[in-house]
Amino acid sequence: VNLLAFFKNAQDAENYNSGDIIIDENNPGDVMYVVLEGEADIMVREKKIDTVGPGDIVGEMALIDGITRSATVVAKTACRLAPVNEKRFLFMVQETPFFSLHVMRVLVDRLRRMDSSI
Amino acid sequence: VNLLAFFKNAQDAENYNSGDIIIDENNPGDVMYVVLEGEADIMVREKKIDTVGPGDIVGEMALIDGITRSATVVAKTACRLAPVNEKRFLFMVQETPFFSLHVMRVLVDRLRRMDSSI
Repeated sequence: VNLLAFFKNAQDAENYNSGDIIIDENNPGDVMYVVLEGEADIMVREKKIDTVGPGDIVGEMALIDGITRSATVVAKTACRLAPVNEKRFLFMVQETPFFSLHVMRVLVDRLRRMDSSI
Repeated sequence: VNLLAFFKNAQDAENYNSGDIIIDENNPGDVMYVVLEGEADIMVREKKIDTVGPGDIVGEMALIDGITRSATVVAKTACRLAPVNEKRFLFMVQETPFFSLHVMRVLVDRLRRMDSSI
């Protein structure tokens, strides 16, 4: 099972136009997103640190530790994203181990890329 | 439930002396550890990036993504650690959601500290 297949028919998917702010780092983090279509840029203090596309997740950090957002996410192209709020996130962690492992892999991948820049 | 309470009576816990290498970044990553007693330093290319203590985990990155170790872990004091191999790790992800959330929080915490140094 992959994340894109799992979420692609989400009834509450949201559409954004190129340039729209999907996540504002100054807002509380009560939702993460699974990217279904298009691309989005992850910005930390106006520096682009990553670009995500279909099957990727964004906004999971604040959902996991309940602290403020660490980054702003801006639509690079028109995009469509499935929101995952805290309740659904906890449900998925409990019921779908592949989801937990995927989230862990995303975080580890980011850490490795940051480690390599030490 | 916390991780220390869960593992403190592990029958296969390992003891290390101050200065012992617990994880060598050149070796394959087929096990992570939960620190039960003592402290250990996490080193990336001879630079100390973190010190962990009781209840913390080390070595989870290579276990999660199956790539080589990202860091060397050296016993700062005498310490005692519970090993978690891949089979047990996957079992815990499946059966104990609090474990998955704990691992995610550890990873997010590290990312935030690295983000702040960008």
